[in-house]
Amino acid sequence: MTVTAPPTTATVGVAGATGYAGRELLRLLAAHPALDGVACTADTRALAECDLALLALPHGASRELGRELAGARVPVVDLSADFRGEWAYGLPELHRDEIAAAGAVANPGCFATAAILALAPLVEAGAIEPHVVADGKSGVSGAGKSPTERTVFCAAAEGVAPYAAVGHHHQAEIEYELSQLGQSPISVTFTPHLAPFTRGLLVTAYARLSAPLTQAEAEALYRDRYAGEPFVELVDGVRTQALRGGNGCHLQVWVDPQRGVVIAAAAIDNLVKGAAGQAIQNANLMLGLPETIGLPAEGLAV
Amino acid sequence: MTVTAPPTTATVGVAGATGYAGRELLRLLAAHPALDGVACTADTRALAECDLALLALPHGASRELGRELAGARVPVVDLSADFRGEWAYGLPELHRDEIAAAGAVANPGCFATAAILALAPLVEAGAIEPHVVADGKSGVSGAGKSPTERTVFCAAAEGVAPYAAVGHHHQAEIEYELSQLGQSPISVTFTPHLAPFTRGLLVTAYARLSAPLTQAEAEALYRDRYAGEPFVELVDGVRTQALRGGNGCHLQVWVDPQRGVVIAAAAIDNLVKGAAGQAIQNANLMLGLPETIGLPAEGLAV
Amino acid sequence: MTVTAPPTTATVGVAGATGYAGRELLRLLAAHPALDGVACTADTRALAECDLALLALPHGASRELGRELAGARVPVVDLSADFRGEWAYGLPELHRDEIAAAGAVANPGCFATAAILALAPLVEAGAIEPHVVADGKSGVSGAGKSPTERTVFCAAAEGVAPYAAVGHHHQAEIEYELSQLGQSPISVTFTPHLAPFTRGLLVTAYARLSAPLTQAEAEALYRDRYAGEPFVELVDGVRTQALRGGNGCHLQVWVDPQRGVVIAAAAIDNLVKGAAGQAIQNANLMLGLPETIGLPAEGLAV
Amino acid sequence: MTVTAPPTTATVGVAGATGYAGRELLRLLAAHPALDGVACTADTRALAECDLALLALPHGASRELGRELAGARVPVVDLSADFRGEWAYGLPELHRDEIAAAGAVANPGCFATAAILALAPLVEAGAIEPHVVADGKSGVSGAGKSPTERTVFCAAAEGVAPYAAVGHHHQAEIEYELSQLGQSPISVTFTPHLAPFTRGLLVTAYARLSAPLTQAEAEALYRDRYAGEPFVELVDGVRTQALRGGNGCHLQVWVDPQRGVVIAAAAIDNLVKGAAGQAIQNANLMLGLPETIGLPAEGLAV
Repeated sequence: MTVTAPPTTATVGVAGATGYAGRELLRLLAAHPALDGVACTADTRALAECDLALLALPHGASRELGRELAGARVPVVDLSADFRGEWAYGLPELHRDEIAAAGAVANPGCFATAAILALAPLVEAGAIEPHVVADGKSGVSGAGKSPTERTVFCAAAEGVAPYAAVGHHHQAEIEYELSQLGQSPISVTFTPHLAPFTRGLLVTAYARLSAPLTQAEAEALYRDRYAGEPFVELVDGVRTQALRGGNGCHLQVWVDPQRGVVIAAAAIDNLVKGAAGQAIQNANLMLGLPETIGLPAEGLAV
Repeated sequence: MTVTAPPTTATVGVAGATGYAGRELLRLLAAHPALDGVACTADTRALAECDLALLALPHGASRELGRELAGARVPVVDLSADFRGEWAYGLPELHRDEIAAAGAVANPGCFATAAILALAPLVEAGAIEPHVVADGKSGVSGAGKSPTERTVFCAAAEGVAPYAAVGHHHQAEIEYELSQLGQSPISVTFTPHLAPFTRGLLVTAYARLSAPLTQAEAEALYRDRYAGEPFVELVDGVRTQALRGGNGCHLQVWVDPQRGVVIAAAAIDNLVKGAAGQAIQNANLMLGLPETIGLPAEGLAV
Repeated sequence: MTVTAPPTTATVGVAGATGYAGRELLRLLAAHPALDGVACTADTRALAECDLALLALPHGASRELGRELAGARVPVVDLSADFRGEWAYGLPELHRDEIAAAGAVANPGCFATAAILALAPLVEAGAIEPHVVADGKSGVSGAGKSPTERTVFCAAAEGVAPYAAVGHHHQAEIEYELSQLGQSPISVTFTPHLAPFTRGLLVTAYARLSAPLTQAEAEALYRDRYAGEPFVELVDGVRTQALRGGNGCHLQVWVDPQRGVVIAAAAIDNLVKGAAGQAIQNANLMLGLPETIGLPAEGLAV
Repeated sequence: MTVTAPPTTATVGVAGATGYAGRELLRLLAAHPALDGVACTADTRALAECDLALLALPHGASRELGRELAGARVPVVDLSADFRGEWAYGLPELHRDEIAAAGAVANPGCFATAAILALAPLVEAGAIEPHVVADGKSGVSGAGKSPTERTVFCAAAEGVAPYAAVGHHHQAEIEYELSQLGQSPISVTFTPHLAPFTRGLLVTAYARLSAPLTQAEAEALYRDRYAGEPFVELVDGVRTQALRGGNGCHLQVWVDPQRGVVIAAAAIDNLVKGAAGQAIQNANLMLGLPETIGLPAEGLAV
């Protein structure tokens, strides 16, 4: 067997490589056939020498660095909330062309990724009323690496709890993106919960139908909308366990005709499609690589 | 301190003592100062000799036995769905007097207990529109003792999944009870989820406000409604972990004035307030004992 | 049944009530029919007004306070390592009379409790060679309440790790106590491991037989040794899950005649028989109360 | 970037693809650049058309099929216990050349892999006495996919339990292999435990030193023995969590000079280095491929 190595690989600098998202970036880049990941300090000069910069810093900490890199025309993907609403929104299933042409991309929030993918087909089709509920459940890695009273094992294990019931910062992001897709603004009530597993995130979204829709029609809406999407799949029996370590998003939709309600659930790995994997998907697009290179859709099934 | 012990204790027969709810009944009865628990087969004669019968049989299996016991005037609490809608509904916070006077009581479903306690103050006050969403999260003991593909450790651990998204049998029960409380029928969209812990259940309920309501007013509604209730408490930081092994129900309520939405969460131990503890609470009422005897409200905090 | 309640209750002051052991003391005391628990600061005067003081302070923090209380003849049980080797050793199954007569008792370490109860029958019978291995597995509450890099959920979940492989401070305690029981000093190799559950502790102890012993003889040794002990039981299928919240210790013993080896496993709830429950057991003895009062042996079976 | 695909890939048939090990084989083969995995029924003809067969059938079910494939000169790796002691023993770190030359390889048991790698350097160096203790801790996937009373979530979660304390079938395998490495037979007391995580296995091995050995000398023994081994690494802070999904084996060694004891711990992913990954490592060797191709050493760090 002879394997001919790619003649060139791009170098990708990772700032914030000690957090969960940063470590996940390095893990995925280590297996990426066309990108070399390098852990950098949050230093403009070091990152400016790379072909692309991935910023996995705490919220608020990317502001200056991101501006300098963008000003210096270094392609950059920021994983924090700092540039959402300002830079291209890095959800390829909605903004693929814009991302490919962008020099600076703001990676979506993990809950926002799942909520938007769950609801976009319904909003685009004008199938629902503009008030939706999105109930989120996240594994504990979503709360970051710093040990806190809430994330210590004995507090987080053996139960479930809501947090930030009103006003989570992903809420406005979900509302903004969904509102672009339809004819009227969408109001989203979003409550995240912390559940005792490491990776994985589920959003269960509820909306009232604006006109009758059958179960088969709803499923067809999703299949059509995501036909050709390499990472999005409509499944039977959606569960976050199927996606640990993979960049896929699994969706399931149910119609309750009696009550005129549609329910859509989206499962992702919060550290992959919800953070590092999606950032690399964006980097692939920005560098003209195949979108899926280096990114398994499936994860550990067990 | 002087405690005068009850001069006599009542004998309580437990049918179905090998399932999770049945074992929990025996565990609680073993520490009950006024009741003696006896594991019985599902046999009318054995149970008819007891002062009260607790039926913890699989759904469908209580039908005949329950009818015979009720016919023989043996006080009976059935934990299955078999007699809900037919016998007195065993939720003391709504039907205390009826339960105390009843000879036969149908214990509520675990999700129904949490959903109804979460929403009752809002419905009674006429504060919400009649379409509500109830998103449920249960530990794995809620799925029963028989090992299945879904409840085996490697399938249930490390993630979360919805099940029975439409048409769960607790849905009609929630709708029926809530509809009795207000002026118009309440439609409930209820989706339960399975999360990786043993005990505990959370329902997060979402409703649109029918008129403006402040956070303080909402909290006052709950405090007033449940003033004097020994097992219901409005808390800050609701989490199922606080209640493992206890018969309490913790509630929290949030108002989103901008979106005109109210969110109410209820946490219980699904095996205690959601099953065995509530059954004993009902038995205490039926036998004229203090309602809280033998029932700790709090559980293992850690 | 007629229960005559104790005419008076004793007041027990708890110093260090915010840690896991301290909270567990208050939880157990809340259900104790003859003791009233009061959370105190680590203040001699407040504690000296109580009938007995329970010190659940971090290791090292009890030194001065314990000395003052003992000097003031306030009955005291210290849960830290500070007075082990100095005060009466609070393992009732070995030192019941001494504890009942003592004014100051040092509660054993959690691993030490399990290891000593697992090995004592073999050492007392002279059945094993004096070099033993004790492999310990503890839930995360054993590491204390402060969030650390090791106890944060994402580090502690989904795997197992040894810690303090050599020189854990319970090792000398185990060696000292076991060496008192036989004819020669016992050397113990003890390695604790951290496993992903909240409560529970298992020690699996391995020793070479000094003379042939059958499985039946080994089991008889244990049954005889612990006959009449209210909290120690020889079981088939030892598992920590059976004891969550209870003060019991479950033992199992296996003989491998081919290799001349005996294996003994002991399971406890590290926060109960390994800390707070055992402290109350000691307090009961010191105050002349029935040893088991307020202490369930069994915990949550599920 | 241009990637030139390997000119040929070998086809690998997987029998038993629905079990945990079989699914893991297919997951790893899907990312293997030089092997194509095909799920086959346990049918000789289908498998005989492949370049190599991987048998992941229940113990006992490979007997006939394995014999036929070996007789037909189809290269075969069997993951069950059926051919251990008969075919080449598939632990490359001990038998690399033999495996590369073999037509039929018996993959080691998961516990045996960890125990042998943990102890081999000490046995080969003659550093320990011939009686060792190996205490094993496995995640629940090690118990197989079929739901049982022991593997259902509510039984396996929130605690730890030994099983098969005496006579586990990996015991003889460990004894046999270790006994080949030194001058005298090694007796192994092996007790496995079930702990609440999905993947991962740790063996903590205990032995008495036959002559003084310092901590530095012990570490040098391990470093020297495994120098150049691509999947074996001596680490500080061994934990199974570091290896989920990877084929690595992490080792740590501690000397207790005071007691004359050495402790060695080995961590692996039981489904990878303990099953499917090691089978592919063997297949790579048998097919003349680079040993590490398609096999990441590290797994999900979080």
